[in-house]
This record gives sequence, structure tokens and C-alpha cells, in this order.
Amino acid sequence: MNLKDYIRSIPDYPKKGILFRDITTLIKDANAFEECINQIIARSKGYKIDKIAAIESRGFVFASAVSYLLKKPFIMFRKKNKLPAETHSVDFELEYGTATIEVHKDSIDKDDSILIIDDLIATGGTAEAAAKLVEMSNAKIAAFVFAINLFDLGGSDNLVKKGYRVENLIDFPGH
Amino acid sequence: MNLKDYIRSIPDYPKKGILFRDITTLIKDANAFEECINQIIARSKGYKIDKIAAIESRGFVFASAVSYLLKKPFIMFRKKNKLPAETHSVDFELEYGTATIEVHKDSIDKDDSILIIDDLIATGGTAEAAAKLVEMSNAKIAAFVFAINLFDLGGSDNLVKKGYRVENLIDFPGH
Repeated sequence: MNLKDYIRSIPDYPKKGILFRDITTLIKDANAFEECINQIIARSKGYKIDKIAAIESRGFVFASAVSYLLKKPFIMFRKKNKLPAETHSVDFELEYGTATIEVHKDSIDKDDSILIIDDLIATGGTAEAAAKLVEMSNAKIAAFVFAINLFDLGGSDNLVKKGYRVENLIDFPGH
Repeated sequence: MNLKDYIRSIPDYPKKGILFRDITTLIKDANAFEECINQIIARSKGYKIDKIAAIESRGFVFASAVSYLLKKPFIMFRKKNKLPAETHSVDFELEYGTATIEVHKDSIDKDDSILIIDDLIATGGTAEAAAKLVEMSNAKIAAFVFAINLFDLGGSDNLVKKGYRVENLIDFPGH
């Protein structure tokens, strides 16, 4: 099975010139969803992982099953003002503006080794913000896992250049 | 294990008078998260289920693992303007204002039997909107599953009165 065949490409969404890669067509196929999760599990072997962190909200779609299967804690990296207790918070630039992600301070302990999961990496702004959240907790990043890498936007390569380990299941051009 | 012990209660969040029930303390305990998913799987036995639908975004935290374990398609019910293809859309009232949820028209087929998962039911506005999305697709609701039921807010009882089947893992008062 080639997971790439299950991703729908939608031109000019959310705005003109953007080719949107849609995961809903992958996850609504039970076999493709299972294969995708199994590939993430396979890619995660070899890393020391204490906890799974997922980026809201499509990261949750993949990370929940992975947390269950690896029997690891599930940490939510959420958008601004969604978490009720004390948080670490990082502002970052997006292709279409700015955003903030946050994590509960009590979700990550010092020296934890965290696997960060998201559905897609483009320019990598969100991923770098997620890395900062982990580092603000004096914890480490085991690796990043992305279902889709928009390789010509450079986010994944940039993370690798900064010394992070990155696993991408599906490669697409960004446009 | 009593899952209730893993939910943190935070007074006056997001505003004065609201006692917020926080799932982050449950999901960051690997054993409690596993037990929670296992309880959902156990509660889902006895229902005919073709697909799992989850309500953004905390519903995804539970539904992904359930989809994987039951080998069923995963359907996202998302907030307004998050889905790139053609959608059904329902507006509804929330305790703090109004909101919209949407589903891709091609995610649900006629006569599908859908298990709807969310983290919490309060007054049930979101759940009723989710039911409408399913019914707009001429599909049926197998059952609703909520990790937390704020029982004195009446949402769960109201769904039952309307003929839906509802499974709640944890009961709390709403205030």
C-alpha cells in the first residue's frame, strides 16, 4: 500500500496558489489509517521515547493511537488559551500570520525524551515552536514524526540541519 | 483503577463559576489513558459500527486509538472552515456563544452506522449538532461515547430522551 495514494490534493485552498494536502481521505480508509499508524510505530523503534506529544489538532489524529500502542503518556500541544493550568507558551510565524502553541508545565518533566507528532510539515514554524516548548521544560526531543512532508518548503531539512531527527512518511511538493 | 481520579478540576476556568474538568492529567498517565481507551472499546461492543466520528479537537485524542483498535474509518467533525472539500455544516449554541461544526460530505455514506466520540458532554449542544451532521448524510448514529458526562447539565439525559444511545465513562457535576 502506498499511503500517498490516499492523500487528496485540493488546489487553491485555503487560498489561491496553495495546494492543500488533505488527510481526511487517508483516515477514512480503515486499512490506510492502520497502515499509517503502523508505519509511525515502525519509524519510532530505535528512539528512546518517554512521552508522545502531538500538535493540535490533526496531530492528535495520529498520536493517540501511537500513544496507546507504545503505552506512553499523551501530551497535547495546544493553541493559545486552550489549556486550563499553568503553561509554557511559544509564539511563532506561520505562512498566513502568527500563532501560539502551549503545553501544560506539568505535562513534561526534566530529561523526558519526547516524540513529537504532527500530520504535516511545511516551512517548519510550528515544529520549531514545539521543539522550544520541550526545551523550555529542560526535556529532549527523541524525534519528530510527520505523516506528510512538503519537502520543497524546507521545514524537514531545516530541522535535520539543527540536529533533530525527523521521520516523514509521505513526501509531496508544496505547490 | 478509577478514571475519575485522573481528571483535574480547575475552578473558574475559562470563566468565573465554571469548574473545568481537565483531561490532560488523565492522558499523560499511560496506564490511565490505556484504561480509558479500553473502556471505550468495551462500551462499543454490542453496537453495529461502520465508522468512528470524533469532534474536534479533544475528541480526536480518544477516537484515533479507538478507530485503530476497531479497524474502522476515522471521520473528523471539525470547526468552521477547517475542511477543504465540500461539507455539511451545522450551527449551534454553546454555553459561551455560537459555533459551527462541519464534516466532509464524502466521509459519511448513506446508511452508515456512526459511533460519535467526544471528550465531554455538558449541555449537549455540540453532540446534537454532530447528530445532525450524521443525519444530513442519511446515516445513523450507533451511539455516543463521552469520556466525561457533566450529568447535572442534562446533555446526556437529553440525548437519551431523543432516542440516542449514550455511553459515559466518568460522571461529574458541572459546577
